[in-house]
Amino acid sequence: MDFKEKYQNLVEAVNLELDKLTAEVDCPQRAIYQAMRYSLMAGGKRLRPVLAMAVSEMLGGNYEEVLPFGCAIEMIHTYSLIHDDLPSMDNDDYRRGRLTCHKVFGEAKAILAGDALLNLAFEVMSDEMLKSQGNIASKAKAMSIIAKASGVSGMIGGQVIDLESEGRIIPAALLGKMHACKTGALIKAPVLASAVLNNASCSELEALESYAENIGLAFQVKDDILDVEGDSSLMGKPAGSDEANQKSTYVSIYGLDESKRMLAELIDKAVKSLCIFGQNAQFLKALAEYIMIREN
Amino acid sequence: MDFKEKYQNLVEAVNLELDKLTAEVDCPQRAIYQAMRYSLMAGGKRLRPVLAMAVSEMLGGNYEEVLPFGCAIEMIHTYSLIHDDLPSMDNDDYRRGRLTCHKVFGEAKAILAGDALLNLAFEVMSDEMLKSQGNIASKAKAMSIIAKASGVSGMIGGQVIDLESEGRIIPAALLGKMHACKTGALIKAPVLASAVLNNASCSELEALESYAENIGLAFQVKDDILDVEGDSSLMGKPAGSDEANQKSTYVSIYGLDESKRMLAELIDKAVKSLCIFGQNAQFLKALAEYIMIREN
Repeated sequence: MDFKEKYQNLVEAVNLELDKLTAEVDCPQRAIYQAMRYSLMAGGKRLRPVLAMAVSEMLGGNYEEVLPFGCAIEMIHTYSLIHDDLPSMDNDDYRRGRLTCHKVFGEAKAILAGDALLNLAFEVMSDEMLKSQGNIASKAKAMSIIAKASGVSGMIGGQVIDLESEGRIIPAALLGKMHACKTGALIKAPVLASAVLNNASCSELEALESYAENIGLAFQVKDDILDVEGDSSLMGKPAGSDEANQKSTYVSIYGLDESKRMLAELIDKAVKSLCIFGQNAQFLKALAEYIMIREN
Repeated sequence: MDFKEKYQNLVEAVNLELDKLTAEVDCPQRAIYQAMRYSLMAGGKRLRPVLAMAVSEMLGGNYEEVLPFGCAIEMIHTYSLIHDDLPSMDNDDYRRGRLTCHKVFGEAKAILAGDALLNLAFEVMSDEMLKSQGNIASKAKAMSIIAKASGVSGMIGGQVIDLESEGRIIPAALLGKMHACKTGALIKAPVLASAVLNNASCSELEALESYAENIGLAFQVKDDILDVEGDSSLMGKPAGSDEANQKSTYVSIYGLDESKRMLAELIDKAVKSLCIFGQNAQFLKALAEYIMIREN
């Protein structure tokens, strides 16, 4: 099976599970499900759950056990986008090719939909822990990894640095820290959580951590490059928003050519980290390459 | 020890633990801790963690084990207030006698501080699960109870009903549903979570559920009464906001006298639910009475 076909199969499994986890129930609160699902089911690359599933398969596990954790991370990712797009934050009108959540449902409901998705992520993970008593400890560990990655020492922390940095030029080290938190943490989390759920050894964990850190940073460098030379119609959001918002980016600090060189180097490092897994790492290696050439 | 003294002791334990859990670290993200702590450490009754601790003591446990779970609920409660106060929600300027979070830190940081507190609640509970392998299953169950209570089928669901009901008169049944979700769920959660953590029997759980449901509703009825005849300086927020926001309340639907009668009846039921615990229930009974006579 080629990479794209395999990726698409995993995405379909994710979409089915997300659909199931947010099935609308007929209750007075159903109005909020529409806003949650509007953003959650708007497509997207599903990179985070796909990573969790791919790691699981590489380690010889089956992906059903990690799927709910991957979906929980996708919910956290989606809530962060909804809140990030709000007028008082980035004030974005478009996301994934459609109007942002608050543009359709209003600010109040968008805030609540974000809150609800973050909360649902933990409901889903709690449910998983109650399902099987046998491996409850590794599930607890996986949840802890995800919780830390999305909190102040992870994603939210990155957003805070971002917010504090707007309109001024920040040192390269702080830019690195910002992205390691804002984007990197939630790309590393599915990889490590899945590794823990599959009882990975120390050396496997170390290799996967290096892989995840490199693709996480690569993902952000590519985002910055796309914002300069990407095609708005493919990205589903307007290019050039970083410059308009006076954001420090890899391109603004290092220039376009150097950013592209860094991107290639990061992908190369990511691929090399996986050598201990031999042939089983084929899909994850292809996934790293895909991050480099993606157009949205 | 009299009720007030005992309550105050428990509040102090809660405040110490909350302070510890949100100790500012010197990192680029520290700016967010100020906003989180501004709202979290602003006082408040700490009713939810106190309930968790009191249930634990009544059941013969010590309160240290339930304290982190109680504090997690207090964080969830506080985040919900921060988001509820936002301009696009209730647009409130004062809370607990001081300016609301967004008035001091701006909307963006208030949204993030709320997100961070919700997330931190689950970080804290995950950490607790990793600490001891022995009773990890009951900790998972407690966390699941709390997660459900704060989500769409609980608190957030109640906020959605509230939002959808603004400016129109709603049926009494829907008002009841709204409060059972919006306030009730997060008052019931510490009681049930603490009961589960202390391996309560079925009949004990049933009795405590009845207690919690009755005080939860009583708490809201009292809130509605206070909004009409409370003293703004004691409440730390202006009275009369329900009427100004055209909200349906117990007072607007049933009138002041009938609301007071309902309140007394609910407290009476709550107290009677505890009869199976005999003398050990003294503090929780006094707590129910306190809800009826509180002035803030």
